Amino acid sequence: MDQSDIVETAHALADAARDATLPWFRTKNLQAENKAASSKPFDPVTRADRAAEEAMRKVLAERRPDDAILGEEFGATGGRTGLTWVLDPIDGTRGFLTGTPTWGVLIAISDENGPFYGLIDQPYIGERFEGGLGRAEMSGPHGRRSLATCGNRPLGEANLFTTFPEVGSKTEGEAFRAVADRVQFARYGMDCYAYALLASGQVDLVIEAGLNAYDIQAPIAVIEAAGGVVTDWRGGPAHHGGQVVAAAGRMQHKAALGILSDFV
Amino acid sequence: MDQSDIVETAHALADAARDATLPWFRTKNLQAENKAASSKPFDPVTRADRAAEEAMRKVLAERRPDDAILGEEFGATGGRTGLTWVLDPIDGTRGFLTGTPTWGVLIAISDENGPFYGLIDQPYIGERFEGGLGRAEMSGPHGRRSLATCGNRPLGEANLFTTFPEVGSKTEGEAFRAVADRVQFARYGMDCYAYALLASGQVDLVIEAGLNAYDIQAPIAVIEAAGGVVTDWRGGPAHHGGQVVAAAGRMQHKAALGILSDFV
Repeated sequence: MDQSDIVETAHALADAARDATLPWFRTKNLQAENKAASSKPFDPVTRADRAAEEAMRKVLAERRPDDAILGEEFGATGGRTGLTWVLDPIDGTRGFLTGTPTWGVLIAISDENGPFYGLIDQPYIGERFEGGLGRAEMSGPHGRRSLATCGNRPLGEANLFTTFPEVGSKTEGEAFRAVADRVQFARYGMDCYAYALLASGQVDLVIEAGLNAYDIQAPIAVIEAAGGVVTDWRGGPAHHGGQVVAAAGRMQHKAALGILSDFV
Repeated sequence: MDQSDIVETAHALADAARDATLPWFRTKNLQAENKAASSKPFDPVTRADRAAEEAMRKVLAERRPDDAILGEEFGATGGRTGLTWVLDPIDGTRGFLTGTPTWGVLIAISDENGPFYGLIDQPYIGERFEGGLGRAEMSGPHGRRSLATCGNRPLGEANLFTTFPEVGSKTEGEAFRAVADRVQFARYGMDCYAYALLASGQVDLVIEAGLNAYDIQAPIAVIEAAGGVVTDWRGGPAHHGGQVVAAAGRMQHKAALGILSDFV
């Protein structure tokens, strides 16, 4: 496996997605379609999502045609290397539609054990967080720095993020709130950016539910490279999605699992 | 009144606040103190908040010593021009502490009728939104553009922002959720940045409660200059804070007030 080619390809994918998404960001002529069968929940997809995944698939067709692909918008494409690129062209389409700078392009590469390298890109700010294959670093408008989580902290001093206060089902919402009642404070609305902040040492816990593989594989690679822990709510592997808890240290992870496990 | 000096002073204040806040952003050695009497609610203040307000007060002492000041951290200072600078050095201290790029520096100047010019600055991204005195524009990493709200839209096609899902008191939370049930979708966690997005044409409604004058005066000036409407939940002036509804157009404003007024 050519590790440097994998890293270079991931950056080429992120560059292609930046070029495809930014022309649509904060424009008035971007229409959203609803992927959901009914009007609620609103599950939007835009031309920007599709253009970004198409641009990334074009890069892979040129650079790594034998790898498999799993993408949010165009599904699974087979390969013969045992490696799969897992792509979410815009994680946080509602955030994208409303102009928030906290959506991201998620790129991971996985084998049978899950993701071993991943990248979270925020095109508008110009920030890129990557982890795996010996790397754990970010670049942004104020330069480069290495990524490291804040490490162990007691739950009472921890902060907690999720995107939607409802989290998921009624029980999943109750589980989240049981943890939220024990932390210093909870925050909302950051989509994949919350995982990048956890890897950067700012956030203690992210708890979400109803995730897909392409929502979480890049965050897993980045967070694990930065010293954090990501599992499902039972403590098992999270790279297939579902109920996910990401923690800056074993202490926060154990404390959160102790509460969440009553609800699964 | 020297309008160009007011605009230049506001930008000098924002520049000073950038220099004072950015060295503390995403650092591990920033300690938060709790301003609240008990451990919950957590109402943090940091050295960055105080340093930024001190830096801004120094600029005003040099450039406009006869204007009054109302600042979040150091209170009211009298003047003799009838003009007051209303300063929030970091709106969204919880967002600042957790590394989110959606806190802001809020600067407004008001007379007896309320704010007539205001500025919302996001130092990390390098974005600045300003409105009033004939201006309505933003600058950021991708250049300059004029600000205009999205205009009238029916509530069922509108998006809605607030920072905390609890919003305020139990009744205030119920009032928010009554509007949230009628919009296309609601989003959370953006602090003052939601008002900047409303002025930029991305957001339809922001509904909050428990605000102080320094939380809302800059947003009022920017949003009104961009064609939006900001009032309290009864339709009266909002520049003293409290329960606030900001809308991209009269249509969203009227529809939201029709619901909120049942709860005040």
